[in-house]
Amino acid sequence: MKPLGPIPPGFQAIDGELAIGGKPVSHWTGQAGRTPLFVYSQTRIEQRFAELREAMPDRLKINYAIKANSFAPLLSLVSNLSDGLDIASGGELEMVRATGFDLSRVSFAGPGKRDVELEAAITAGVTLNLESEAEAGRAIAIAERLGLTPSLAVRVNPDFELKGSGMKMGGGAKPFGIDAERVPALIRKIVDAGCNFRGLHIFTGSQALSAEAVIDMQAKVLDCADRLAREADVPLPKLNMGGGFGIPYFPGDERLDVHAVGQVLEAQFAALPDTLADAELFIELGRYLVGEAGVYLTRIVDRKVSYGEIYLVTDGGLHHQLAASGNFGTVVRRNYPVAIASRFDVQPEEEANVVGCLCTPLDRLADKAHLPRAEVGDLVAVFCAGAYGASASPSAFLGQGPAIEMLV
Amino acid sequence: MKPLGPIPPGFQAIDGELAIGGKPVSHWTGQAGRTPLFVYSQTRIEQRFAELREAMPDRLKINYAIKANSFAPLLSLVSNLSDGLDIASGGELEMVRATGFDLSRVSFAGPGKRDVELEAAITAGVTLNLESEAEAGRAIAIAERLGLTPSLAVRVNPDFELKGSGMKMGGGAKPFGIDAERVPALIRKIVDAGCNFRGLHIFTGSQALSAEAVIDMQAKVLDCADRLAREADVPLPKLNMGGGFGIPYFPGDERLDVHAVGQVLEAQFAALPDTLADAELFIELGRYLVGEAGVYLTRIVDRKVSYGEIYLVTDGGLHHQLAASGNFGTVVRRNYPVAIASRFDVQPEEEANVVGCLCTPLDRLADKAHLPRAEVGDLVAVFCAGAYGASASPSAFLGQGPAIEMLV
Repeated sequence: MKPLGPIPPGFQAIDGELAIGGKPVSHWTGQAGRTPLFVYSQTRIEQRFAELREAMPDRLKINYAIKANSFAPLLSLVSNLSDGLDIASGGELEMVRATGFDLSRVSFAGPGKRDVELEAAITAGVTLNLESEAEAGRAIAIAERLGLTPSLAVRVNPDFELKGSGMKMGGGAKPFGIDAERVPALIRKIVDAGCNFRGLHIFTGSQALSAEAVIDMQAKVLDCADRLAREADVPLPKLNMGGGFGIPYFPGDERLDVHAVGQVLEAQFAALPDTLADAELFIELGRYLVGEAGVYLTRIVDRKVSYGEIYLVTDGGLHHQLAASGNFGTVVRRNYPVAIASRFDVQPEEEANVVGCLCTPLDRLADKAHLPRAEVGDLVAVFCAGAYGASASPSAFLGQGPAIEMLV
Repeated sequence: MKPLGPIPPGFQAIDGELAIGGKPVSHWTGQAGRTPLFVYSQTRIEQRFAELREAMPDRLKINYAIKANSFAPLLSLVSNLSDGLDIASGGELEMVRATGFDLSRVSFAGPGKRDVELEAAITAGVTLNLESEAEAGRAIAIAERLGLTPSLAVRVNPDFELKGSGMKMGGGAKPFGIDAERVPALIRKIVDAGCNFRGLHIFTGSQALSAEAVIDMQAKVLDCADRLAREADVPLPKLNMGGGFGIPYFPGDERLDVHAVGQVLEAQFAALPDTLADAELFIELGRYLVGEAGVYLTRIVDRKVSYGEIYLVTDGGLHHQLAASGNFGTVVRRNYPVAIASRFDVQPEEEANVVGCLCTPLDRLADKAHLPRAEVGDLVAVFCAGAYGASASPSAFLGQGPAIEMLV
């Protein structure tokens, strides 16, 4: 038996089935007409934003990093709840443009921006988070050619990291941002070139569950920003303090205490240095805002036994939920939160493996899980499917095609 | 410094550039109009088939598993070179149908076949490789309803494995096939139901580079097939002996000696038991046939230094080449064969990291590689990109969109 990850709080049964958005899952699969299916709950997203705003200082702005989930209806919803949007490609710029969101509140980070992407962003008035001096040079040259004043921020590769984060993006040699020691010179260059300087972007890691680690990181971010601004001798109009807020995926994961984070931040905001006194301060979150609002539903098409082990074979799999299969950036596979959605109020009684329909042993959704007895036709729910699910999976693999997505 | 995987033999420079299909890579990127780009070489695929047929007994048929690469022009080519095609979904059935290939030479394996897929396959005359007794029951019932005689083979989960294979698919509890001990009863059921019994499918693993391991596996497959046929008291019309032929991806990988495999197989075919005397014997390969024929080309958009390390940032990445990034079913990341394609005849002179354009630290194409000095605009080649590349990667991730594919 291997433990399952923790099901996000608040999911209930209706008529014995897992309910999402006040309806049992069979309602949504019926409406979709087929499985597999991602169901994203609008209420859960709204609640998450509300709780987070309650916990954080009023002054802190909250940006959504659309890479987490750019499904158009969800993006539309989230764009109304966010103070800004962060994009990572020209493709994402077009997705944001389609929502009608104010593009001056969009910033674009990413280490490999092509000239065509720089041009589209500058033309749209999007802030570029510059990843290198060379990129700065390209952006300034393109803006000059276009006769436009570019909005430029500098992405800093800081000399510290987010401790215990799932993905480290600072502290040592990295492809992201510009080493802190070289940042003041680049700020001067941007300001002296007459560009619209939009401050700094300091992103040190993601998927942290320790409030202590986030608090430590945020304090260092504020210090670092102040130091760099003083060296460059310019106040900061904006500071993207990064993200890093994680969600529990795996057995033993503890929920991040955002109230503790918010309290410390409140105190820090009350004593900001001059360089940050007038800065717009924001964090950039993706997974934390939408991850737990999504459920992936897949139907059992076979129940089989091999050498005494039970396999529940579903019509879904890693082509829609690569991360849940344990094949996306994880070293040791652990189980996501998984349940038999159509028997959500039934006690576990057997050990079973939940696998996908792909003809590869990588395609496993739950390993030796303790589950209610499930039959062909039952629905399996994989939780925490709202971020880095559909768009971060190889949907064309084995010709299975994409899953349906619904915001409810 | 970390070593790179071995570049497949036969790649040359023309005018200093890597050549594919007799032309330098800049010819193909020019024709494509943009990067990134997968270029598949028709000549290399034809040569691979010819060499393999030369090495193998005349009697052995060679099937192509289209999951490795189903790009339509490549599939068309390979379907003319293969004795049969193996599919893993209803989607792949439609791809094969579009080539005009004789569907009676197609077999369909996969643990989670839906009823709609079973119906499409039975109607088309495709052989179903049954993965469970329950699936057999569904297939027979559907065929009865349609008034058709289904072509049914049994996929065996054997009690042995392919030693040293990259992916084990037999030997112990598995979601694939039916445990060997239960196979004779299912064969009897199929025959007694008046279905068109199409023999056995015994697939034990993939990506093996040891001839000894493949020889051992094939001997066990023949023994196992004979034993099961004798127990069921029917001769086998067909035997899919599985695949398992690997290609060198990583430093130190040695090429599989297919001549050694073929010689032993020749001797075994000369002394087949009665149950296999009239059987059509075939192997099912994907990666081995097309993997080394493909090259992924991506352009350097930034060259940057962080804490003394050089980063070559490209316009491609894991959204096209997930496996090369080390994030698809690998525990320890190792470098694929990678080269600066536009300086293919230049000696290495520096250590550099080749990264993708995605805003995630997972997006790495070569780690601490010894390469010629490369600049913005240079092309990077990732070799062994002909199988499990484009279709096995999350092309929608971060809104970057798919790469172009070309058969040349």
